[in-house]
Amino acid sequence: MTTNRLDALPLRPELRGKSPYGAPQLDVPVRLNTNENPYPLPDALVARIAERVGEAARDLNRYPDRDAVELRTALAAYLSRDGFEVTTEQVWAANGSNEVIQQLLQVFGGPGRLATGFEPSYSMHGLIARGTSTEWVSGPRRADFTIDTEAAVAALATHRPDIVFITSPNNPTGTAVDRETVIALYEAAQAVKPTVVVVDEAYVEFSHADSLLPLLDGRPLLVVSRTMSKAFGAAGLRLGYLAADPAVVDAVQLVRLPYHLSAVTQATALAALEHTDTLLGYVEQLKAERDRLVTELTALGFDVTPSDANFVQFGVFDGPGGAHAAWQYILDRGVLVRDNGVPGRLRVSTGTPAENDAFLDVVRGLKKEHSA
Amino acid sequence: MTTNRLDALPLRPELRGKSPYGAPQLDVPVRLNTNENPYPLPDALVARIAERVGEAARDLNRYPDRDAVELRTALAAYLSRDGFEVTTEQVWAANGSNEVIQQLLQVFGGPGRLATGFEPSYSMHGLIARGTSTEWVSGPRRADFTIDTEAAVAALATHRPDIVFITSPNNPTGTAVDRETVIALYEAAQAVKPTVVVVDEAYVEFSHADSLLPLLDGRPLLVVSRTMSKAFGAAGLRLGYLAADPAVVDAVQLVRLPYHLSAVTQATALAALEHTDTLLGYVEQLKAERDRLVTELTALGFDVTPSDANFVQFGVFDGPGGAHAAWQYILDRGVLVRDNGVPGRLRVSTGTPAENDAFLDVVRGLKKEHSA
Repeated sequence: MTTNRLDALPLRPELRGKSPYGAPQLDVPVRLNTNENPYPLPDALVARIAERVGEAARDLNRYPDRDAVELRTALAAYLSRDGFEVTTEQVWAANGSNEVIQQLLQVFGGPGRLATGFEPSYSMHGLIARGTSTEWVSGPRRADFTIDTEAAVAALATHRPDIVFITSPNNPTGTAVDRETVIALYEAAQAVKPTVVVVDEAYVEFSHADSLLPLLDGRPLLVVSRTMSKAFGAAGLRLGYLAADPAVVDAVQLVRLPYHLSAVTQATALAALEHTDTLLGYVEQLKAERDRLVTELTALGFDVTPSDANFVQFGVFDGPGGAHAAWQYILDRGVLVRDNGVPGRLRVSTGTPAENDAFLDVVRGLKKEHSA
Repeated sequence: MTTNRLDALPLRPELRGKSPYGAPQLDVPVRLNTNENPYPLPDALVARIAERVGEAARDLNRYPDRDAVELRTALAAYLSRDGFEVTTEQVWAANGSNEVIQQLLQVFGGPGRLATGFEPSYSMHGLIARGTSTEWVSGPRRADFTIDTEAAVAALATHRPDIVFITSPNNPTGTAVDRETVIALYEAAQAVKPTVVVVDEAYVEFSHADSLLPLLDGRPLLVVSRTMSKAFGAAGLRLGYLAADPAVVDAVQLVRLPYHLSAVTQATALAALEHTDTLLGYVEQLKAERDRLVTELTALGFDVTPSDANFVQFGVFDGPGGAHAAWQYILDRGVLVRDNGVPGRLRVSTGTPAENDAFLDVVRGLKKEHSA
């Protein structure tokens, strides 16, 4: 990125001096920085993807199904597994949940409108707001990273947002938000004006608690967003989706780029959904490993944020150099974790047992040096 | 689309009453309405796509290469075939040229900024402008659908746009824009203020004339956009790209959604690029068929717009019902063409020889009834 050259371009003023979002893509032995699923897809699924994409490739000269009906139907069936029925008309899919969020902000946000989220949280919410010319204001969290309902409701009354993001489990802290809090925030927002409330459940399959999907019932402006990147082990696929009232699905179609979802993406996602049971088996293993990371990090004396996601936030690094120095120490020993800018904290994705062992060995050394 | 339900939502005001963009996806024997390439991909390429996607699927649990370097390098090599060298750093790729255009408008357009194009042209330019809160103003064309340089330069001086779209060959008219016109418009725009000029060359492989790529030399705010949808017979892939000064490529990265381009999309596009020579062979066949359509439609007495694209605009339908009635007549006989809203004109995509024969038979009948 050559800032000098960029300064010579007629960029939108608010982009001046900014850098592209994204964690460093470094080639290190143990990568635990982007909350990827450490398990490669099983061979049978890889073969099925090649087969389905091969079939789709025969018609690749034709535009894909613009409405992705088969895929949305399969996603609706997946969401309906736990007893709360979701229909095809309630589901929309796009290239990653980032694109879902962008479409929501293009429809319900934009110039003169305001979005909020309770930070620290998934920083793309604010960045995509900026990308869609939606004003962004940060809402509060407690020092333990939970949402203080009373303070959050007060913030909604003050800021009067048009869109509210609630990430549960929250990234980068791992904190789940309970049902009652979401209900209270939804009602508080509606009391001011009609407000779209997006519950970002990217990591919900890893949660100890149930999905908040049933809250859609009777809440026409509630949106639950999901992704196949984590639980389905398909970060490379870029398949995000949402469930909401069918009118919201109609609304995003006013701004979606026509044929936004390629035939190969649709085919690959459908293949992965055929293997849901196997993939959710990996999720169970990862949940156990995540809990082990929490237990062992705590035993090492770290301050560990309770996690319902596939990653763990830990600290506190208040020595010289703070969290960044600890991040570098860990990286120098072959393990890449994430410095999300939360003061004194780092985030580690749950890897395979061997990867987690490698990580724990390194932070054990870190802890020893710190206490020495 | 249930407008009543949509009206109950807190949509951005400018979206109220709008419908989603998109041609009817109808199941008819001969589909010549969306400028798709009628030739399915060759078997060898289908097999290669399955193979490359299968390889990519092994790492699908990991995020894709965020910068798509291998793909951009292959696209740069493709663009360099005709002697004007384009480097990887000059190329950017996204999910369809629509997403390329959206990213450009997010960086260089937005609230308080204005984009223009010479209409009738590709209507997504204006629609994506709206989706990014960029004001849109329509620039002039002559009655024969060519661009009147003097009138266009005057329009630039009046409107003072931040982004100018020049589609060559133009969709839906098929009209190519010559080098001198593009140079004149670029210079006229820069004379007012730094202005990004996008030459949309989605159909350029079908042109009788050369690409305008060499104009990038010495023009830091010129952008040439391309797609694999047409010449590469890969509308289902959704792969658009641009070539420009490397600083423009840096700039779009400020707004691109991270990991926007999936690993399966990158793998499929790379496979297709391996088969460039075969696919460009189909292009030669289509150019010959396109010229035949022009000749035969002209012989039938239609007013045909000269075409450098893979489609032909024809008319004039000034009878009762106008172009729409003619569209329906043709559809009723099993051939789907496009009514783009250009008064008195329809657009037909070049199909296979058999599809074109079927289309010509139908319009021969239409012409007879008209003259009877």
